[in-house]
Amino acid sequence: MAADTVASPDSPEPRLLIIDTDPGVDDAMAILMACRSPHVKLIGLTTVYGNVPTALATANALRLLERAGLEGVPVAQGAARSLKAGTDVERIADFVHGADGFGDVGLPQPKGRAEECHAAEFLVRTIAAHPGRVTVLALAPLTNIAQALMLDPALGDKWADLIILGGAFFVNGNVNPAAEANIFGDPDAADLVLGSTERLRILGLDVTQQCRMTGAELEALRGRGPHGSFVADISRFYLGYHREWYGMDAIFLHDPTAMAAVLRPDLFEWRRGAVRVASEGVTKGQTVLDASAKGFHGHNGWEGWPRVQVALGVAAEEVVGLITQLLTS
Amino acid sequence: MAADTVASPDSPEPRLLIIDTDPGVDDAMAILMACRSPHVKLIGLTTVYGNVPTALATANALRLLERAGLEGVPVAQGAARSLKAGTDVERIADFVHGADGFGDVGLPQPKGRAEECHAAEFLVRTIAAHPGRVTVLALAPLTNIAQALMLDPALGDKWADLIILGGAFFVNGNVNPAAEANIFGDPDAADLVLGSTERLRILGLDVTQQCRMTGAELEALRGRGPHGSFVADISRFYLGYHREWYGMDAIFLHDPTAMAAVLRPDLFEWRRGAVRVASEGVTKGQTVLDASAKGFHGHNGWEGWPRVQVALGVAAEEVVGLITQLLTS
Repeated sequence: MAADTVASPDSPEPRLLIIDTDPGVDDAMAILMACRSPHVKLIGLTTVYGNVPTALATANALRLLERAGLEGVPVAQGAARSLKAGTDVERIADFVHGADGFGDVGLPQPKGRAEECHAAEFLVRTIAAHPGRVTVLALAPLTNIAQALMLDPALGDKWADLIILGGAFFVNGNVNPAAEANIFGDPDAADLVLGSTERLRILGLDVTQQCRMTGAELEALRGRGPHGSFVADISRFYLGYHREWYGMDAIFLHDPTAMAAVLRPDLFEWRRGAVRVASEGVTKGQTVLDASAKGFHGHNGWEGWPRVQVALGVAAEEVVGLITQLLTS
Repeated sequence: MAADTVASPDSPEPRLLIIDTDPGVDDAMAILMACRSPHVKLIGLTTVYGNVPTALATANALRLLERAGLEGVPVAQGAARSLKAGTDVERIADFVHGADGFGDVGLPQPKGRAEECHAAEFLVRTIAAHPGRVTVLALAPLTNIAQALMLDPALGDKWADLIILGGAFFVNGNVNPAAEANIFGDPDAADLVLGSTERLRILGLDVTQQCRMTGAELEALRGRGPHGSFVADISRFYLGYHREWYGMDAIFLHDPTAMAAVLRPDLFEWRRGAVRVASEGVTKGQTVLDASAKGFHGHNGWEGWPRVQVALGVAAEEVVGLITQLLTS
């Protein structure tokens, strides 16, 4: 594992990475992992609603970059509402992440400011500037990514990869039995993105709920590396939520697992197939993968849809090891 | 196994059984199993669209009873269309079962006639006449059962059990990746029935696709018992469909597996939980089980919904053995 996460003189160029995010405790963990990995170069954060409202996501993105000494990395603020907002009030997960998104630890105001442009514009422009070289990691509702694809429908041919944290394929959701939170946040955006290109990977609760860190393991991060104590601090509220909601003394490592998939896709079992998203009714936000080998026969909504890569298995112990290593390095 | 399917002098009274059906090759197998089992007494067939249009389902139900020498068992014809028909043309599965529902083997016209009353009325009246004693086995779209529950909302307290063949919980559907055919046929009826009572069991593709009979095993039924050759004959077209569609020299024993669940529920692994059905959009007809131990937290469409029993596992070899035994006895 170590060999793969430490740069060596003959390492290839680090991959360029933009993270679309709503920080968020586990977003913070993923972003700090990216800051510490020699294999990726963070070139932007785009913000959206979800764990917190968008304006707070922007402030938190700036806070994290300042903590990591990466004040030069741009932050572009994106959508404050889902594509079809108006039918539903946005669901902000302050009961999971605290009112400040970071477990109510009382961080100072950031010094920096967001870019002038919208996150979608930033994505289109930055990806076009480095054709085939930018990986996008989407950790939140997919509104910004969908808006970027509406601005440039060929964007999927220009990014190196899009890795989406979202969905629940052959397990129950976490908002309700059908839906996972990120996809539920904007199911129309998700269906649009999943229908736009084969060049994306998606991982959801099928794998992220297998990757956990116990309360003791979180405490053991303290004093290790520049961010260990910070991560332990902001995770307390999040751990409390997991204790109450799931009855377990551990947290699910959703966003860090997605960051691990950027760095080590070989630790996941990927299945190719079309994914559609329920956009209405009681199961709104459910992700349905056509898991058949050749694609489902006959006329149906999956026919002709891009066959993307979906994570259905994970080497959980190795993923948690990679996360721990990067958060304490 | 044999001990359980052969009546002995001290056997309890056989259970009273009504089968709601759209025969259909595998419906025929299930009905003939019921005719041969000493543990159930068939007291009616109610018919509906699905594998064939309703009028043909009625003719086929009469044909099967005449073949079994059970001309006295009443047949009541039910709905010809789904509850919200008009938005969709009914999907008749003649490509699976042949235009006559029995693999186009050319059966003579039945001699008998259906009852004057609608299937829903027949269900209400017959169940009320034997409170707590009638098991209903539903092998088709749930329109008749839903209409019966609209006529008598307390019907679920009056039947002994309702066993539904339908749904795909943690596997893909068979109409499309989201939906199984019976539920897809009338998702609104399914949601209504699943919301009406805890006193029902449902088994879908998660278990029925594990129970198969090969082409050679079907041929080996010939000459065994009064129905072995008939079952082998009508199954040829159905086997051809499975060869072409699934690339396997075997049939799925959907309806016979449901009949096995009537006789031997102990051969299945049942999970209690609320089930909702997607009634619109691309995933229309999908069944979503809340598989959490205590029911999902928070406000959602599964909250307060009856926690029914859903089959998620099956002792497939024993089920296929029971089916074979009854079809050759």
